[in-house]
Amino acid sequence: MREQVQLHKDKFLEELQDFLRIPSISSLSEHKQDVREGATWVANALEKVGMENIEIIETDGHPIVYADWLHAADQPTVLIYGHYDVQPADPLELWDSKPFEPDIKDGKIYARGATDDKGQLFIHIKALELLMVERGSLPVNVKFCIEGEEEIASPHLPLFIDKNIEQLSADAVLISDTSFIEKGQPAICTVLRGALAMEVGVKTANTDLHSGSYGGGVPNAIHSLVHIFDSLHDQKGKVTVKGFYEGVPTVTEGLRKEVAAIPFDEEKAMQELELDSLYGERGFTFQEQTGIRPTLEINGVTGGFQGEGIKTIVPSEASAKISCRLVGEQDPQKVYERIEQHMKAHKLEGSRITVNSLIQAKPVSLNSQEPMIQKASDAYEKVYGVRPLFPKEGGSIPIVEVFARLLEAPVVLMGFGLPSENLHAPNEHFHLDNFTQGIETVCEYLESL
Amino acid sequence: MREQVQLHKDKFLEELQDFLRIPSISSLSEHKQDVREGATWVANALEKVGMENIEIIETDGHPIVYADWLHAADQPTVLIYGHYDVQPADPLELWDSKPFEPDIKDGKIYARGATDDKGQLFIHIKALELLMVERGSLPVNVKFCIEGEEEIASPHLPLFIDKNIEQLSADAVLISDTSFIEKGQPAICTVLRGALAMEVGVKTANTDLHSGSYGGGVPNAIHSLVHIFDSLHDQKGKVTVKGFYEGVPTVTEGLRKEVAAIPFDEEKAMQELELDSLYGERGFTFQEQTGIRPTLEINGVTGGFQGEGIKTIVPSEASAKISCRLVGEQDPQKVYERIEQHMKAHKLEGSRITVNSLIQAKPVSLNSQEPMIQKASDAYEKVYGVRPLFPKEGGSIPIVEVFARLLEAPVVLMGFGLPSENLHAPNEHFHLDNFTQGIETVCEYLESL
Repeated sequence: MREQVQLHKDKFLEELQDFLRIPSISSLSEHKQDVREGATWVANALEKVGMENIEIIETDGHPIVYADWLHAADQPTVLIYGHYDVQPADPLELWDSKPFEPDIKDGKIYARGATDDKGQLFIHIKALELLMVERGSLPVNVKFCIEGEEEIASPHLPLFIDKNIEQLSADAVLISDTSFIEKGQPAICTVLRGALAMEVGVKTANTDLHSGSYGGGVPNAIHSLVHIFDSLHDQKGKVTVKGFYEGVPTVTEGLRKEVAAIPFDEEKAMQELELDSLYGERGFTFQEQTGIRPTLEINGVTGGFQGEGIKTIVPSEASAKISCRLVGEQDPQKVYERIEQHMKAHKLEGSRITVNSLIQAKPVSLNSQEPMIQKASDAYEKVYGVRPLFPKEGGSIPIVEVFARLLEAPVVLMGFGLPSENLHAPNEHFHLDNFTQGIETVCEYLESL
Repeated sequence: MREQVQLHKDKFLEELQDFLRIPSISSLSEHKQDVREGATWVANALEKVGMENIEIIETDGHPIVYADWLHAADQPTVLIYGHYDVQPADPLELWDSKPFEPDIKDGKIYARGATDDKGQLFIHIKALELLMVERGSLPVNVKFCIEGEEEIASPHLPLFIDKNIEQLSADAVLISDTSFIEKGQPAICTVLRGALAMEVGVKTANTDLHSGSYGGGVPNAIHSLVHIFDSLHDQKGKVTVKGFYEGVPTVTEGLRKEVAAIPFDEEKAMQELELDSLYGERGFTFQEQTGIRPTLEINGVTGGFQGEGIKTIVPSEASAKISCRLVGEQDPQKVYERIEQHMKAHKLEGSRITVNSLIQAKPVSLNSQEPMIQKASDAYEKVYGVRPLFPKEGGSIPIVEVFARLLEAPVVLMGFGLPSENLHAPNEHFHLDNFTQGIETVCEYLESL
């Protein structure tokens, strides 16, 4: 291990724990102040390592943190992006330790945000600190653009980028918010699925009704909801919404081979997740289903009586959240409208439905042969002894498409997470050796540019 | 109005408000002490009006209150049943006043339990008080058997009755826990639907999963749930569970006419409930659907992320409550097993399902020509100026069938509620004139025996 990493590891970990203690949940308004605290924490951390021109920039939502160090004359400029906000932590009862009280165990740090994205973002801050300590300066010019709204699909960042193209301009955008293929096998993601999320409400009567007096004779909001939602997929796991697959690339033999080249152990995954079987669109492998095919998932549902025992009512209200992953040329707005149309056509008589868009992000595709990406490959190889693969990531980082388009710069998705690290789930964690080796890799990368 | 009713009305109402302040919700374990307080309150109220041999009888659940007055030699004995427990009060935000802070407004008293069943039970206690005041004794022998588990389907009362047949023996069982047809038109219910309730859980992986990494490739607990539940009814609103309708009487022209004789204004109901349309099993009227046909309703559903915004997960757990109303010779246990079987056959691959029975009660049918019921008709006519109708009630009072069978006594369902009084729903209330006229009716009835 690089000497300085070894030397400062414990201190770095203590700092990371401080960062992880902040419940900066961007989707919950009661955590607005915590999110702000996250921004302040990042700004302070950047100041401490010698970054300059630090700004906490207000938006209509959560703040953006900007900082730079621009004293490497004639050297390239790297814009580092990351996010200090995290997903909600519920269901709390499924966590082994408290989500905002970091717990170090078996070489992993457990906390909400450990891998997504505080731990990965912190790698960059500490890499710069080490380079400063080792060299007294940085080998390249660096800009930071760190947001607090990634988990709610970056509603304000695109406009900020658009208005500050010159300030943000760079030769590469460096992002660590993705995963290895598995432990020991790094990956630079080159394809990200787009995303779409919405909430759906179903309403019938103006009140819940006694199922004895009214049951069987009035519409039931949950009956309508399950009817609508069961109509969204057919028996083969295909989405039935008319026009949903418009813009989805044909799956050629070549593409199939490319996807199959990324190792994935179905049996092992099933065992780890205690699944009886996998389930998805028939005719496609798990990697294809989660990497290059679009999806529609119900993320949550609620309605009627949910307490202990029973309440014999005909519920008058029910609601749900659904989200899609999009690929190729699928247009989020069009897909949204078609799902809305489909749901309105499938509601049961006597029920009304309201739909509200929460997220819309376009799919993105990057060129793995781009020199800035190839140099990242070299850095990984130097530290991990193996060249990264270029997977098609099933997740979405909505802002990647915006950075690529507005800054006209290659985006390098240099991830240090593992797919098994429970991101967005209880017991989220981050492997400490990927934290330290991540710092080394970023140092190597910046030095190589 | 009977002079003594007029005289004591305000005091009676104050006492009723005390009774309604007790949040005796039998289905929620955190209210166990409140339910006990309900029992104590009833026992004290019975003692105050001169009842004897008062006992608060422990069960494995909530207590039963017994009391009697047996000094009317050579006169018949009436067993009065009622319940001091109430339904849960949520959703609280839909109440105009607090559910356990009674509010008197426009001649109605608003509170959880106002009509179901504290208000109606209290009518009997106060009728006895008046008779005692007026006559110094009662015209008949009276026994009280008041339970605290009606809203959770009386799990312990049947055994208590079975073990105490002699102590409880009576010439009639008198129950006020049903409704008029509409204001001014009393009813003595002679048919009650049976009931069946269960909870259903669906589980897939051992944790919620990130919809980016796993979405489209693993089973989704909510997808399985909506698939199962949407399969329970066909497009005509008929229950599709095999054998569900076994034991359901054929709907003859005669039965149709009988049901149609009970007035019901569809337009008015739709307007009051702000419904776009009614909805039920095709080929049957609303009265048939809710009175003589069996039903299956989803009462509540929950799963995945339900907070503000979105959490892009593949949920690993979902659950629901469902209940049925049964008629004729439908057997609750058989129907339960068939629904369980149906659900297990309709789950999606990769999901496991658990089912748990919460309530099972047989349907019941009483003979309206029985003298004890005809005398109740006379009492109503004397007070309200109109003879009651004999409707087939859609609701269930599981214990009615047990009383009729074990005590071999006619059950007189002398209800004083109104169908519009929001029982089991927010803003439950009870009309004060039915409270006072109810006391008069019970006095008339007991005097007539």
